[in-house]
Amino acid sequence: MAVYTEVPDGELEDFIARYDIGRVVSCKGIAEGVENSNFLLHTEKGSYILTLYEKRVKAADLPFFIGLMEHLARKGLACPTPIHQRSGEALGQLCGRPAALISFLEGMWPRRPAARHCQLLGEALANFHLAGADFTMKRPNDLSLAGWRRLFEACRERAHEVSPGLAEELARELELLEREWPLSLEVGTIHADLFPDNVFFLQDRLSGIIDFYFACTDFYAYDVAVCLNAWCFEPNIAFNTTKARGFIANYRKIRSMPKAELQALPLLARGSALRFLLTRLYDWLNHPPGAFVKPKDPLEYLRKLRFHAGLRGPGEYGLDL
Amino acid sequence: MAVYTEVPDGELEDFIARYDIGRVVSCKGIAEGVENSNFLLHTEKGSYILTLYEKRVKAADLPFFIGLMEHLARKGLACPTPIHQRSGEALGQLCGRPAALISFLEGMWPRRPAARHCQLLGEALANFHLAGADFTMKRPNDLSLAGWRRLFEACRERAHEVSPGLAEELARELELLEREWPLSLEVGTIHADLFPDNVFFLQDRLSGIIDFYFACTDFYAYDVAVCLNAWCFEPNIAFNTTKARGFIANYRKIRSMPKAELQALPLLARGSALRFLLTRLYDWLNHPPGAFVKPKDPLEYLRKLRFHAGLRGPGEYGLDL
Repeated sequence: MAVYTEVPDGELEDFIARYDIGRVVSCKGIAEGVENSNFLLHTEKGSYILTLYEKRVKAADLPFFIGLMEHLARKGLACPTPIHQRSGEALGQLCGRPAALISFLEGMWPRRPAARHCQLLGEALANFHLAGADFTMKRPNDLSLAGWRRLFEACRERAHEVSPGLAEELARELELLEREWPLSLEVGTIHADLFPDNVFFLQDRLSGIIDFYFACTDFYAYDVAVCLNAWCFEPNIAFNTTKARGFIANYRKIRSMPKAELQALPLLARGSALRFLLTRLYDWLNHPPGAFVKPKDPLEYLRKLRFHAGLRGPGEYGLDL
Repeated sequence: MAVYTEVPDGELEDFIARYDIGRVVSCKGIAEGVENSNFLLHTEKGSYILTLYEKRVKAADLPFFIGLMEHLARKGLACPTPIHQRSGEALGQLCGRPAALISFLEGMWPRRPAARHCQLLGEALANFHLAGADFTMKRPNDLSLAGWRRLFEACRERAHEVSPGLAEELARELELLEREWPLSLEVGTIHADLFPDNVFFLQDRLSGIIDFYFACTDFYAYDVAVCLNAWCFEPNIAFNTTKARGFIANYRKIRSMPKAELQALPLLARGSALRFLLTRLYDWLNHPPGAFVKPKDPLEYLRKLRFHAGLRGPGEYGLDL
């Protein structure tokens, strides 16, 4: 939960006057998301999300993110789409920050995802992969192997403050992943952060996916592995094979997964668990005292990592191989 | 900025089903307010504010707050009004907390209040006082003299951590206020917390006032004094007599202020400054590390207090006496 930037009313009105959406009638900071400042804006014409990009998002990446949202919306995917200024620009400046106005997507994210949510997620992820396949811009995944190594080195000396022996376990894990990480799986545009708070539902349907600010060019199957971690564990970190089976079966109805992708899943899921473990560990060790954002527990992902590391193969996720 | 309670989607839908407002299509936590958890809700029929009352608000006071909002709305004052469940209840339970659904008020609060805002505020405060005059429920102001004494004793030993000599200065101030506090000014329903973030504007008009959760039965002139502190100082704590003059002149066009109220203003403003100084000091000394809410600077109000203490009379606010 975070709004980092206060937008003075006059500056807001000047910014919104560049769009053809009528005048602002209300603007509330939203207590969700940790990377950027988000506001729910009501104007005479409707509801919008106003995003101010804070320093964690690189300005050079914004054309990729904005372009991807536009590409996906053009393909008919249910997702927010940037509104253009009268001048044609989709990216502006507000309070000294890059800022964009995005269409409002109805729906709520599931606080307690059920098996049915995971089935619908499978379809939506596959549709996202297909819709993004001909998106021509590329962005390397800076939170893959090289990024993990950097984060690990930045946390190594103080990792024991979170759990004794953690640095040694992470070092071994990272070496194994650097040695065995796949080289030849199919690559495309992936979301890379498709947690429940980025997927909206309305009654019994999935109404759309949001937050493309970690999207990048990487293995499709890595996105599947991220979702296994984010959606298929219970709060006590027990893996729910019903959820995983439903998720992957529905994914495969829309995009077939070659055998190599299925075989790679446990390793990709270990990598994905390490990625969230390391970013959480970094935030845990480096969040300023009294910060707005309460850091998430890194050890949740250590337990997930160990689960994947202990599997004999992808069949143990409950999949039909 | 704070949302203290996560509302699971199922519980939210069950709660909203008790109202005649259609189904929920979105629900976002709002990063404003520090006492309660607030959500901006869109349903098939419109926009609403959902408030979950957290522990800082006493459950026994809720009927007063809800009753006051209904009374004011019936009188035609622009303010949010509670929506009733089909059963007739305006107060429900959600996630184990008292909860109310309130109509959505358009407008934005001014981040940099100008003289024009202060003029409009004067009218709105006077209209609020007149509209509340025949509200029959009473609530003592638990943040007046006795409450200040309690807060001061709770902070006394550690006040020097914030500023050397602060405890001694506050002790002297509190003794003076206890000795000289007026006894016979006109009493009625006051807002008691009418800061800029509780007053909404749309273009050139004041669209309404919100947040009645400090409202109580106390001197009308004390509400005027709160606004002098909250609206009429510049960020560098210079007092702006243009703002004060416009605010009070417009107030007096609608509700006349007897001479005794005008004479009492400097003392009431000292008391009001002490009230915000003490609650901020308490929060500063007692906020948990890593708390969501960044405490506000208590010393801002020490400087305001000293300003009022140094005046020879209310004429120095720039008023016509």
